[in-house]
Amino acid sequence: MSLVERLRSGDARALPRIISLVERGGDAGQRALTELYPLTGRAHVVGITGPPGAGKSTLINALLGSIRGAGRRVAVIAVDPSSPVSGGAVLGDRIRMTERHADDGVFIRSMAARGRGGGLAAATAGVVHVLDAAGFDVILIETVGAGQDGVEIASLARTVVVLQVPGLGDGVQAIKAGMLEIGDILVVNKADRAGARDLGRTLRQAVMPIAANVTGQIPVLYTVAASGEGVDELWVEIERHRHDLIDSGRWDEKILTAARNEVLAGVRTEIERRLLASPHDVPAITAAIEAVASRRQTAGSAVRALIETMFQGKL
Amino acid sequence: MSLVERLRSGDARALPRIISLVERGGDAGQRALTELYPLTGRAHVVGITGPPGAGKSTLINALLGSIRGAGRRVAVIAVDPSSPVSGGAVLGDRIRMTERHADDGVFIRSMAARGRGGGLAAATAGVVHVLDAAGFDVILIETVGAGQDGVEIASLARTVVVLQVPGLGDGVQAIKAGMLEIGDILVVNKADRAGARDLGRTLRQAVMPIAANVTGQIPVLYTVAASGEGVDELWVEIERHRHDLIDSGRWDEKILTAARNEVLAGVRTEIERRLLASPHDVPAITAAIEAVASRRQTAGSAVRALIETMFQGKL
Repeated sequence: MSLVERLRSGDARALPRIISLVERGGDAGQRALTELYPLTGRAHVVGITGPPGAGKSTLINALLGSIRGAGRRVAVIAVDPSSPVSGGAVLGDRIRMTERHADDGVFIRSMAARGRGGGLAAATAGVVHVLDAAGFDVILIETVGAGQDGVEIASLARTVVVLQVPGLGDGVQAIKAGMLEIGDILVVNKADRAGARDLGRTLRQAVMPIAANVTGQIPVLYTVAASGEGVDELWVEIERHRHDLIDSGRWDEKILTAARNEVLAGVRTEIERRLLASPHDVPAITAAIEAVASRRQTAGSAVRALIETMFQGKL
Repeated sequence: MSLVERLRSGDARALPRIISLVERGGDAGQRALTELYPLTGRAHVVGITGPPGAGKSTLINALLGSIRGAGRRVAVIAVDPSSPVSGGAVLGDRIRMTERHADDGVFIRSMAARGRGGGLAAATAGVVHVLDAAGFDVILIETVGAGQDGVEIASLARTVVVLQVPGLGDGVQAIKAGMLEIGDILVVNKADRAGARDLGRTLRQAVMPIAANVTGQIPVLYTVAASGEGVDELWVEIERHRHDLIDSGRWDEKILTAARNEVLAGVRTEIERRLLASPHDVPAITAAIEAVASRRQTAGSAVRALIETMFQGKL
């Protein structure tokens, strides 16, 4: 029986093994993905994003209770794109989370940044597909939402929940932290703190011009993740967004967008991988870098020449 | 007289015009860069990075005083990679900074994320070159350091200063925020707050294994940017790092690394630009996206086929 067949038959040990294969990105991982990919597309993939300190882990911990209470199986992928140099992630929060939900309807996985940008998004997409094929109804992706990584990872989700907290600065700071544009649902967490309502009002005003361009309102909710306050309401809102997507036909759009982003991120990553793995094997690149370092040529003109050499007009 | 000649002759209006041309990235900008590029490589490019709320703008404001006090001309590029969707940056801090230093030895420029990842790094590199050619002794690049953008932008610098503050969480949070690996100098800002010394000790321990791999120690300094405390000492440390680089020959290494990153980021950006600008013009890409969305093919195998088609084995 193949690993994927074991996954489908409910063998609990198959899941982490397939995920590891897919994360590693080798041939065995690719074969497993090819085998399970036709089984995917059903799960509700939900991005949970917000700045460090917004309480994402705590909120997800609480949300797992609401989702399990509704009888759904749920998986969490905690992605830490913040440490691309060492590839290390701080796993303490995850371990605590796993201990609290020792239940086979809950699966939790941490992913550190192993490659860069697109590499992380591609690896995350692969893990999403495995969990989707394994029959999880809801897949939560936790990530710091800033930068290219954050946007690419968010684009894998059908629904994006953006967390903000009072006290990380003023309302302007929250907007500057900058993930509002990608949010389908905004949450003011730690809502028992001073300034929560002000932050909520600032967010509501900030998303008004965005809401005008999408179907319906962008809700702003208040939660106190540590006590569970408002968390069931957030789950209701996530479900409502899923129903809205399905009823309006935008669910298929989201699937197409996710596929588009996965392909384009994959192309970028693969090109980058080949460039970074062996720039010294491509003599034109080494020569270009030396010309730029010695001020004989600008990076811009070196890049244009390299692209022409590499693609011969094919792109 | 060309714009670059006017820049060299000290015409103050030439500088912002050339920067705008270079940021726009068109032919005129490329021509200007080509003309001024041989004049570059002299400025001390210093990255100032840290999480939102660490007080980067305030610290830079104070640092401008120390640098001007030492008789150096200084430019600041404030890069906001946090809002890649709308491309908007919150400029209030900058405007206040500019008003305080209405002095032709200080030049301040904000850059929002206009493209994505590498696009921002490439644009920032271009602006660095313009300021370098204009004769600024020190160029400070302010940026949120997380993610690919942050690392790429930091790689433009000869010296990277990483800010942390007590109270954004515990020490683990600071490490998770994850920019320690790229820092040449660490700063605990808002050092009058509770927990500052603990954070400093945590940072010192965290960088010990890193310091073992580089020449010398990685200093951990304490500042209260708002009152100016410790800021002159930071300037002394930045100067010491520059001298260390020159004396040890690592200055040229840094120039080569910056060139390497600029070329590779440029290649990535250009490929991405062509892909994103017109994926529908490349029928193979459109077909791949549809095959992935309909679960007929994994993104991985679609990407491999696309790369082979596009590069024909040249990469």
